[in-house]
Amino acid sequence: MTDFRDRSKSLLEMATEASLEAIENAGAEEEDFDAIYFANMASGAFNSQTAVASAIADQLNLVPAGAHRIENGPASGGSAIRSAFMGVASGIQDLVLVVGAEKMSDVSGAIATDILASMNHPKAEYKHGVPMPGMGALFTRLYMEQYGVTEDQLAAAAVKNHTNATKNPKAQLRHKPATIQGVKDSIMIADPIRLYHTCPVTDGSAALVVCPADKAGEFTDKPIQIVGSGQATDIQALEEREDPLKLRSVEIAANEAFEMAGLKREDIDVIETHDAFITLELAEIEAAGFFQPGEAGKATLEGKTAIDGELPVNPSGGLKARGHAVGATGIAQAVEIITQLRSEAGERQVKDARTGFCCNFGGFGNNTVIHILRRM
Amino acid sequence: MTDFRDRSKSLLEMATEASLEAIENAGAEEEDFDAIYFANMASGAFNSQTAVASAIADQLNLVPAGAHRIENGPASGGSAIRSAFMGVASGIQDLVLVVGAEKMSDVSGAIATDILASMNHPKAEYKHGVPMPGMGALFTRLYMEQYGVTEDQLAAAAVKNHTNATKNPKAQLRHKPATIQGVKDSIMIADPIRLYHTCPVTDGSAALVVCPADKAGEFTDKPIQIVGSGQATDIQALEEREDPLKLRSVEIAANEAFEMAGLKREDIDVIETHDAFITLELAEIEAAGFFQPGEAGKATLEGKTAIDGELPVNPSGGLKARGHAVGATGIAQAVEIITQLRSEAGERQVKDARTGFCCNFGGFGNNTVIHILRRM
Repeated sequence: MTDFRDRSKSLLEMATEASLEAIENAGAEEEDFDAIYFANMASGAFNSQTAVASAIADQLNLVPAGAHRIENGPASGGSAIRSAFMGVASGIQDLVLVVGAEKMSDVSGAIATDILASMNHPKAEYKHGVPMPGMGALFTRLYMEQYGVTEDQLAAAAVKNHTNATKNPKAQLRHKPATIQGVKDSIMIADPIRLYHTCPVTDGSAALVVCPADKAGEFTDKPIQIVGSGQATDIQALEEREDPLKLRSVEIAANEAFEMAGLKREDIDVIETHDAFITLELAEIEAAGFFQPGEAGKATLEGKTAIDGELPVNPSGGLKARGHAVGATGIAQAVEIITQLRSEAGERQVKDARTGFCCNFGGFGNNTVIHILRRM
Repeated sequence: MTDFRDRSKSLLEMATEASLEAIENAGAEEEDFDAIYFANMASGAFNSQTAVASAIADQLNLVPAGAHRIENGPASGGSAIRSAFMGVASGIQDLVLVVGAEKMSDVSGAIATDILASMNHPKAEYKHGVPMPGMGALFTRLYMEQYGVTEDQLAAAAVKNHTNATKNPKAQLRHKPATIQGVKDSIMIADPIRLYHTCPVTDGSAALVVCPADKAGEFTDKPIQIVGSGQATDIQALEEREDPLKLRSVEIAANEAFEMAGLKREDIDVIETHDAFITLELAEIEAAGFFQPGEAGKATLEGKTAIDGELPVNPSGGLKARGHAVGATGIAQAVEIITQLRSEAGERQVKDARTGFCCNFGGFGNNTVIHILRRM
């Protein structure tokens, strides 16, 4: 993956850089690639570029490999991994590049906020000017009230992720450690969401090479297997859901992935989850079945989700501090899990990590893609 | 599929209408759907809407079926069919909705032309203001010069497609029959491309239901099998290709699809191909191996590709006259082939059609997806 702090490169340059790193890491030959899945949310709006997947095939000299783009809002990366997984599982494709990228800094922050808001319900939400931070604020207020989650608990999750990011040389906010008081004093974005509760606007790309498990040994001494894949949708408008705090798409996608993997929650050693707002980290690991509803904040404050805790969450720094280059995010989560499972995470290494879990969350939870990865 | 002449509906309304027709035709139950693949080129730019796939899942009451959008420029529809095919072939998905839609009339014609041009090479083409008709004109000029293709031959292909469209109740230009002289007298768009050589701007949607072949009997008395699927990319910039007239992605994708199907060119009874500019119909059926280079125009003028000819091409009216709702096009091609193979095409029925071929062409030939469909 690229350095998520770097804003100097174009969409295509970033996608090429991450792809070449992945291809080189696998020692794969250009002519052996059957397909490219490119995850990206909004290159048309951000960069006036469409049909970018085939441009990437050309840039990487992977022509005539088939290529298309997968768009699923912030869950585009997870959807692209799932597409590659099914392409290989179908027997039709044997060597596949998955690459996600987003170049958000070509537009102003206000325009970026508008482009991101375009994933909300057009009549119930977008038309009324509700951007993502507004959705995050409504959700967070209800979540705090319903479960008695405190400002300190939310701040503890943000501090953990900022701390983890200081140990990740690719993280966007790696030079920005945070304190609980600092988070609580940061400026209000959308009450009760503060600056240090939200992810930044990010440019970045991440890539993977996927092949059949029985061929993985040809490309690496440390193969990592996709043992579970799950995806689910939910009612789009938050207000129309029976219980807006219940992230049903996370629950269903997690159950599907665990069933495919034949594993249990306690088999998971490390988690990357989709903390676009820090509240979502807590709500997602609850919905995925790792904590009881309302309990994740307390566990976080007690250090249970730190790198040296019982169940490390977002050792990369998460969307919060590694950054959230939207189309790249789901793939960056998998890159972090793979790095952990290969024991190559340096200062942020989770001890004895053998099995990892990625939760890539789209819209405001109306589309979640989950993967479980395991050391072979 | 929706009536491609109708501009009264929103993107979501059209996608819902086509999907419900497909689901009803299959007699499938909402709760049995595992996934939705939504093909669309540029809803962000055309309609300020992204992450539309999950909105469709919600609209159709197919939640929690997994959903994402496939974008591959004008080849988005073919890519979505291929994704569904692989999802089912992988054994992970058993009942899948494929739906494509584009709502282009929300913006002016000039803006639509700009949005479509965003699929061209950003530095070699788009930046210099070359829109798609400009690419079509350069290609057509070279094609006419190289092979001695005449204005009458080009016009004959357009007249055939306009004639076919008069027999298609869903075609956009069904009330616009054409004559060779009329085509040659129509206004110049980009020399030598005239109005009657180019497809219109279209709103529309088309949908399919895909399942394992051995379960198809549960949903229809007339099952149609996807027996071949191929996809290939090419160098993006037309000027960088060794021979700009050689549509390599079409050739490679066609070979892949025929190899998978175990069929020969002469087994094909009916073709839908991607005549965004009428020249492309001729060049594609040559590249796909049905005619020698430069011979398709002559064959067309002789009536060989008419509905009652030896090898009927674009009985629907093609992009030229059925219309080109970009993200829907690849799926509308398959809908026409399925209608033909089921002997349900009424006045435009191709006699004894058992095997059909769809060529969905993206960018200016830098990404082609081909499917071969067969009556089971």
